[in-house]
Amino acid sequence: MNSFVEVPSGSHFPIQNLPYGIFSRPDGGRPRVGVAIGEMILDLALLSERGYLDGPHLTRLSVFDRPSLNAFMALGRPAWREARSTIQALLRHDNPALRDETELRQRALIPAKSTRLHLPALIGDYTDFYSSREHASNVGAMFRGKENPLLPNWLHLPVAYHGRASSIVVSGTPVLRPYGQILESGADGPVFAPSREMDFELEMGLFIGPGNELGRPIPVEAAAEHIFGLVLVNDWSARDIQRWEYRPLGPFLSKNLATSISPWVVTLDALAPFRCSGPKQAPEPLPYLLSSDDWAYDIQLEIQLQSEKMDRPAVISRSNFRYLYWNMAQQLAHHTISGCNMRPGDLLASGTISGPEPHSYGSMLELAWRGSRPVQLPDSEVRAFLADGDRVTLTGWCQGDGYRVGFGQVSGQILPVQE
Amino acid sequence: MNSFVEVPSGSHFPIQNLPYGIFSRPDGGRPRVGVAIGEMILDLALLSERGYLDGPHLTRLSVFDRPSLNAFMALGRPAWREARSTIQALLRHDNPALRDETELRQRALIPAKSTRLHLPALIGDYTDFYSSREHASNVGAMFRGKENPLLPNWLHLPVAYHGRASSIVVSGTPVLRPYGQILESGADGPVFAPSREMDFELEMGLFIGPGNELGRPIPVEAAAEHIFGLVLVNDWSARDIQRWEYRPLGPFLSKNLATSISPWVVTLDALAPFRCSGPKQAPEPLPYLLSSDDWAYDIQLEIQLQSEKMDRPAVISRSNFRYLYWNMAQQLAHHTISGCNMRPGDLLASGTISGPEPHSYGSMLELAWRGSRPVQLPDSEVRAFLADGDRVTLTGWCQGDGYRVGFGQVSGQILPVQE
Repeated sequence: MNSFVEVPSGSHFPIQNLPYGIFSRPDGGRPRVGVAIGEMILDLALLSERGYLDGPHLTRLSVFDRPSLNAFMALGRPAWREARSTIQALLRHDNPALRDETELRQRALIPAKSTRLHLPALIGDYTDFYSSREHASNVGAMFRGKENPLLPNWLHLPVAYHGRASSIVVSGTPVLRPYGQILESGADGPVFAPSREMDFELEMGLFIGPGNELGRPIPVEAAAEHIFGLVLVNDWSARDIQRWEYRPLGPFLSKNLATSISPWVVTLDALAPFRCSGPKQAPEPLPYLLSSDDWAYDIQLEIQLQSEKMDRPAVISRSNFRYLYWNMAQQLAHHTISGCNMRPGDLLASGTISGPEPHSYGSMLELAWRGSRPVQLPDSEVRAFLADGDRVTLTGWCQGDGYRVGFGQVSGQILPVQE
Repeated sequence: MNSFVEVPSGSHFPIQNLPYGIFSRPDGGRPRVGVAIGEMILDLALLSERGYLDGPHLTRLSVFDRPSLNAFMALGRPAWREARSTIQALLRHDNPALRDETELRQRALIPAKSTRLHLPALIGDYTDFYSSREHASNVGAMFRGKENPLLPNWLHLPVAYHGRASSIVVSGTPVLRPYGQILESGADGPVFAPSREMDFELEMGLFIGPGNELGRPIPVEAAAEHIFGLVLVNDWSARDIQRWEYRPLGPFLSKNLATSISPWVVTLDALAPFRCSGPKQAPEPLPYLLSSDDWAYDIQLEIQLQSEKMDRPAVISRSNFRYLYWNMAQQLAHHTISGCNMRPGDLLASGTISGPEPHSYGSMLELAWRGSRPVQLPDSEVRAFLADGDRVTLTGWCQGDGYRVGFGQVSGQILPVQE
């Protein structure tokens, strides 16, 4: 399947993908919904206005002329499938409907470089899981010893905590090094200082489509009806602040300084060919967490770091979404089993996705093993944690036969503390 | 100062208070902003439409004809003071402007009993602090022993965690007993069962007015410009679920089943006469947490419980907001010191407000000391935790000279698990 829109080799955005995002046109107007195709963005607000997206579930001017995807997310899977099918047909090389309407085509397809990308959704609530066994074991081994790296609950439930929604930012937003309370080794009390242990966390996040009513859990089998799609997530973390503050209620200021996400939401339908089985779970989870479906996805992940001295980024880790022990359906079923209600646009992140090998770890804390084996950069710099000016870029893609379904990237540069 | 509107003796809503809320008129129309006065609600949308609230900061139809207080909250203290002054003048017994306009007065003043009250704000983010030394010490003594009830960080920073915004409900909403994972004493693994340890937590919460930009902390001295007002909060908690899930990232499903708040937001201006000094803080907090102002308030608090067998509620605890060790200005300065951004309508709750004496504790966990001394109800029932059908009502007020500035109440009844 090919598009009349040119898609460079290796592009994350071929006609098989069609991720949704929010963008501003270079010629003004308020932010609206678009789809990435090659190096262009297809303006769905415009196509919808012209009636090109009409169908049983979608009507003119309804959900695409908006500054967030929430309304589209709320419509549910039948509408998402209709939109995908319509848009895919419109972009095919052999369909003249848009291809040969020169004036419309030129207005509706805009070079991505000339646009501004925004957060894809208004995020009501943000939850961060802790679903990588390798990550939880690494952190546990560092802080509690190698004999007992996992806490007793970890293999029975997908541990998670509520994160801060207001400080979620789109890729490209700079990240300020924060001040905070830090307990130095051997000290009696904390000092107030800039964090010296700034870190990233390689994660992915799912966006909720239709929600559930308070008191009505989402069964594990119904998860696919409630998950719109996925993005890359960098859960920036100030480890020294975290270590002092987190007992007994969990991380707070060490995480709410900023969380970066990629602008393009890749749908479950686009990811379907890359579904696979996840790690075997033993002990067997309780019945409300058991699903007969495969819920892992073969998504290759990469962490790149570029210091101010380097002229291009270096890959410092390679991981894969399929390593996650707890899957998205289990996360959603668990999150709502208390009756907790989800709303369209809520974001559930996976937690750091570490693989089994040291070069597949998802945070600097693990890659440099708490500073004990600093990461070597190609220009002979070393890092135990991030330095001012460092840019961290996460990227991820599924490798198909001759094409990639990718997520683009989420990138952010560490700026020095503000005086 | 008196109003021409009758205010019964002991009412929480005299002309000195004037709290804001969102209500639906019995004659239809969308939810709008009102002010409680005695047993009536003053319709600010209507008064604004008629030009009665015009002033330098407030213009017709601007912020009151809306289903949340967020737009009014965002305006800031000068606008809040103008509104308070205008409304107080309009309600005075000696001002004929509204009093003698019979048709308008009858339309603008509606019996509260005939209306429906809603959540006062769209809450973007909800944070729950842990600011009562007595509460933290009680819980610490129960779970870690009496020798060392406070963790080392507690006296240095106001511990907090992010809560769930979607499941915040207004007073009167029933609370379903949740299912969840529970580790029974001596068991190897958890069971899936309804919570047997449902609890309440007596808290208060502050609503944010104008926010701050990401990366720009709110200094402790500027806190009053960012705090709109306070409500009562009941942070329902499933203790058995909490005990199993909370390590290492904090409470999650044990709290996100529901959090109830009172519908009327009492402003800092109404509370000003009741400002007082809080507990002495030693060790002295770091400079970013030091304020020269008094930030405690003398707010008397009461917990009532009514079982299905009882014909009226019984008071089971009396506490006071002034007991809190960490105050609101410190909470806000700490929360934003990482650069975390606040938005209008964000809610920051205090954590359980326990006093020094056993009859002033703010949760059943403490009142019944983990089940070891069950609470005796007047009809000879006893409680270690809440039973189905139990109704918990929190109330609070400041005692002035011949009047009360009160919060009304937040109430909720425990319903059995849903099959």
